[in-house]
Amino acid sequence: MSTDYVTQKGQAFDRAAFESLLRRKVFLWQSFEPYGSVKGLFDYGPPLEQLESQVIQIWRDHFIRSEKMMALKCSMLTPYEVLKTSGHVDRFADYMCKDPKTGEILRSDHLIGDVLEARLKSDKEARGEKVEEKEEDPKKKKKQSKAAKGAVKLDDAVRQEYEHVLAMLDDYTGEGMGELIKKYDIRNPSSGNEVEPPVSVNLMFQTQIGASSNSPAFLRPETAQGQFLSFQKLLEYSDGQLPFASASIGYSFRNEIEHFVDPEGGKAHPKFHTVADVKLPLLDRNTQTSGSTKPTMVAIGEAVKTKLVDNETLGYFLVRIYQFMQKIGIDMNKLRFRQHMANEMAHYASDCWDCELLNSYGWTECVGCADRSAYDLSVHEKATGTVLRAREQLKNPETIEEWVPVIDKKKAGPKFKKDAKAIENALEALSQEMKEKLQITMESEGKAEVPVEDIAAGKVEIDTSIVKFEKQKKTITFREFVPNVIEPSFGIGRILYSLMEHSYWTRENDEARSVLSFSPVVAPIKVLVCPLQKDPKFAPLIAKLEEALDNKSISFKIDQTGVSIGKRYSRNDELGIPFGITIDYEALDDGSLTLRDRDSTKQVRASQADIIKAVSRMVKGKETWADVVARLPAYEGQKEAAE
Amino acid sequence: MSTDYVTQKGQAFDRAAFESLLRRKVFLWQSFEPYGSVKGLFDYGPPLEQLESQVIQIWRDHFIRSEKMMALKCSMLTPYEVLKTSGHVDRFADYMCKDPKTGEILRSDHLIGDVLEARLKSDKEARGEKVEEKEEDPKKKKKQSKAAKGAVKLDDAVRQEYEHVLAMLDDYTGEGMGELIKKYDIRNPSSGNEVEPPVSVNLMFQTQIGASSNSPAFLRPETAQGQFLSFQKLLEYSDGQLPFASASIGYSFRNEIEHFVDPEGGKAHPKFHTVADVKLPLLDRNTQTSGSTKPTMVAIGEAVKTKLVDNETLGYFLVRIYQFMQKIGIDMNKLRFRQHMANEMAHYASDCWDCELLNSYGWTECVGCADRSAYDLSVHEKATGTVLRAREQLKNPETIEEWVPVIDKKKAGPKFKKDAKAIENALEALSQEMKEKLQITMESEGKAEVPVEDIAAGKVEIDTSIVKFEKQKKTITFREFVPNVIEPSFGIGRILYSLMEHSYWTRENDEARSVLSFSPVVAPIKVLVCPLQKDPKFAPLIAKLEEALDNKSISFKIDQTGVSIGKRYSRNDELGIPFGITIDYEALDDGSLTLRDRDSTKQVRASQADIIKAVSRMVKGKETWADVVARLPAYEGQKEAAE
Repeated sequence: MSTDYVTQKGQAFDRAAFESLLRRKVFLWQSFEPYGSVKGLFDYGPPLEQLESQVIQIWRDHFIRSEKMMALKCSMLTPYEVLKTSGHVDRFADYMCKDPKTGEILRSDHLIGDVLEARLKSDKEARGEKVEEKEEDPKKKKKQSKAAKGAVKLDDAVRQEYEHVLAMLDDYTGEGMGELIKKYDIRNPSSGNEVEPPVSVNLMFQTQIGASSNSPAFLRPETAQGQFLSFQKLLEYSDGQLPFASASIGYSFRNEIEHFVDPEGGKAHPKFHTVADVKLPLLDRNTQTSGSTKPTMVAIGEAVKTKLVDNETLGYFLVRIYQFMQKIGIDMNKLRFRQHMANEMAHYASDCWDCELLNSYGWTECVGCADRSAYDLSVHEKATGTVLRAREQLKNPETIEEWVPVIDKKKAGPKFKKDAKAIENALEALSQEMKEKLQITMESEGKAEVPVEDIAAGKVEIDTSIVKFEKQKKTITFREFVPNVIEPSFGIGRILYSLMEHSYWTRENDEARSVLSFSPVVAPIKVLVCPLQKDPKFAPLIAKLEEALDNKSISFKIDQTGVSIGKRYSRNDELGIPFGITIDYEALDDGSLTLRDRDSTKQVRASQADIIKAVSRMVKGKETWADVVARLPAYEGQKEAAE
Repeated sequence: MSTDYVTQKGQAFDRAAFESLLRRKVFLWQSFEPYGSVKGLFDYGPPLEQLESQVIQIWRDHFIRSEKMMALKCSMLTPYEVLKTSGHVDRFADYMCKDPKTGEILRSDHLIGDVLEARLKSDKEARGEKVEEKEEDPKKKKKQSKAAKGAVKLDDAVRQEYEHVLAMLDDYTGEGMGELIKKYDIRNPSSGNEVEPPVSVNLMFQTQIGASSNSPAFLRPETAQGQFLSFQKLLEYSDGQLPFASASIGYSFRNEIEHFVDPEGGKAHPKFHTVADVKLPLLDRNTQTSGSTKPTMVAIGEAVKTKLVDNETLGYFLVRIYQFMQKIGIDMNKLRFRQHMANEMAHYASDCWDCELLNSYGWTECVGCADRSAYDLSVHEKATGTVLRAREQLKNPETIEEWVPVIDKKKAGPKFKKDAKAIENALEALSQEMKEKLQITMESEGKAEVPVEDIAAGKVEIDTSIVKFEKQKKTITFREFVPNVIEPSFGIGRILYSLMEHSYWTRENDEARSVLSFSPVVAPIKVLVCPLQKDPKFAPLIAKLEEALDNKSISFKIDQTGVSIGKRYSRNDELGIPFGITIDYEALDDGSLTLRDRDSTKQVRASQADIIKAVSRMVKGKETWADVVARLPAYEGQKEAAE
């Protein structure tokens, strides 16, 4: 995969050069470098922080403002009970093995996979076969070639067993992996030590709220739970009307939207007709099962009609995600929507499409768009007793007859004590059929046994002195339901990384001159101001230009170093600054300036007012360079000297 | 204090009514309500999230873009060692007492204060004196009046002792507080139980990085440390030039700026002259010691000249903070800058001014502007050995002679083994005087003893076969120094709360009609669209208006409920929507609309294009309502019906 990856200009992608640029221009680095860095933690330097901030502003405008979503900022510290109920405490975990001598913790499936793959490779080498280099990571390469020195041949039967295990690795339980580790004597490759059996380790960060240890908590693994628990407030704020959506811009670079919708009526979306004709690159489940990874361009209206995409709301959000990616400058040839396989979905999802972006690591999930159905609201409702439902007023109220438990509370209280409420709830929750049956039993035998999940005994004996079931008339004026949730969840960090790769290319005939061609609407800095030379005569013009840019809130950088203009542009192309304004000696006479476009290196010349206006419109996305070139006179004069 | 607090219209401030508004319009609530809420954690609902987002956008523009600061996004998880070095592990703590029977944890100083104050109050009541109600909090009132039932008289000597203890409470150590608790039999008021002795409890949230327990970490208690540890990258990005500033928008609502400056040259600021005439309300240390809390309006140029404010950089930031508060709509009569008393400063600060805002809880610190001197960079440098310094090229390089240790590394390595590097560093770090003295000792005795802090033995014996000190000539071309840091640190949550209180008032003659008069630049929603009645005839005009507002990215809300326009405006005044656009039957004929100003309730009438232009300019802060009224014709027609 990665060896085929090319830049937007069709050039082979050189990841080492790209990473060197990111380091040199301080886009990002591993956190706490003076303390030896911490694996997995990154700091964003000025260019990346600004890029992120602008991508998030577009996200806010594209989703929150334009779709009238309700923005929420919920607590990041989340009590244990909440995440126990949501399923994260039990299921948001990986199996890990500890190396008891070094203290290293290794993911069990990765450990087994790495060791068996290394043995198969060694076997291939021992048998004199050419070994394909699949991995690009230079560290990994080094490890592999080391292992290759003492190449060991395997029996045919063993080789086949290894291959079978590797193909099925995702399906093993913790115990199963423990057996594999024992059977094949799998050890920590970096120490040669035996490892302890796999233990399920939760992936969340644990802490506690307050000084007492009575309040264990986690840093939220997603922003969704806070939104679910705010459901009642949101419903109130939207005057009880569905559908509505809430949105949270989270730490950990996940921005999540929760769109609450009535499950009846096929999850229709009121604005679906406005996007029905938009074609998306869809890679559905069946195509994947058939072994293909080629998406098909399908109009979303067609896709929903044929049930390729389950419902309008899911379809509507796929289109909005597509349009968002276009706005921020993603290479649309490197985007696809892939449907999750049935066994791949999260524990809460009933359907899920990922928006994947192609980068040099392969196709990468950047937005998950899941139908969480009624899962979350239901489990929280059950755990807390708080009603998390919406109501629909019925146009024609209906009168029905139904069986109802009538409880003599004066007797029930003293008899059932602390279990009384749970028993009452259990009796009310029984089906109509069961209630009728119980009444018949009690009429004949005077008593009956009822299962009650939530009490210690698990069941209770009731008798006619305490309970009877009656058929009562009831007028139904509204329908109560647990809304379903469609959740687009954005990994902003991955989107930013892909955006940087998609923007990267090098000038023809000069690989050392690399460019990050960020769209003007997201570029961290918009304008590079270049006086032709270090000359105090330019000072008043610089000051005037500076003031004009400040007035329009356009970010800029002044480069007054002595090097040639061409060199100054070239080194700032690496920061992705889309426009350059040159102040030359002509400017001293007539005040005219030249404006240079980073991608084409073409220039126009006009008055300061016209140049500022053009830049201002381009950074707002209201005009393109093509529009500006059509309006303002081209300038060739400096071309040679400048490039 | 709080009883005197008045709204911007001079009305007595009714906190209960204000809080009820915040709840009703879902500005904020305690987090995890369905799980019984968690004390101290709050969720922001849609209006507050939007208000915050816009205040932060202004902050970004006012500080980061306009001052060309380097924005950083650093890891929130911070390894133990970093915060050990910074002093937070040892000093960011409070003394706590545990009630061993209930598990409750109580802050020791609060516990002692509350119990002794309750006893004094009970004594006063027992002696028939009138008890002043200082506390506004209704919960506290209830507690106090309960305690008053069994009023107990105290001896005069005991009363005096209690009063003395209360006055000095901030000065007691943990042990001292433990003695007080024993001596006065102070128990947990809510249980009557004895409590355990005070223990120092760190206020940070602890967690760990990765699955192994080898990597304890904390959630950062400030965003500053990440910025300090990125110092080298920032220096590189700014081509080695000081001063420069970095800025982080943090979780926990603290936005921090670190301005790095050369300590030589009096910490001048290049843009200070542009603000020198701005007058600020300053309450300095001496005035406070004299017992006054009245600030004086002083031009910042004057204040720095007289050393009231220590240096230009500190002064420059005080002005920029002042201007920021003005931009977002803070009531400038409720703002002051208070200098910290010497014993009040954080462990890293050498001078500090707080920007305090007056709200119904009293004067509240909202921005701290501290001079952290070289503290942080120095301690991290010492702990890690990473050089965290800047250099200044000297205009006239000078040649000096200095004593230098010359080490025979071939012999030193095998002899000192793992301590070799530490010993080398220690020898180099010795003063010139000491080096000369050691050389004399060694010449006479052949050996000498040198203290080495960083090795187990704490000292080392060196002899002439391994080390000698020589006088060498050296050309100095640059001066190396640890930059000093000026740190403005913004508590966005407190600023937002104060802004909400400052914006709150009620309509004359109708206390039930409350208003949040947010400035158009920060208001969560900008426009309320009101068709006169529910009438399908208005639909095309609404759609047209909707499209025009969307095109300008102006947030709006449509209120099509059947109630009167006056009522619709009134209930949306509570959301702080600054403008209303009414579509009436005249609009069907000529397309003209009316625009209503929330604060004055005055209206103008014009074409849709003119109305949109006016709103667009006002929400960008480019025009005020007064400007618009001067331009567009006033409209009185609907006045009576509408209000």
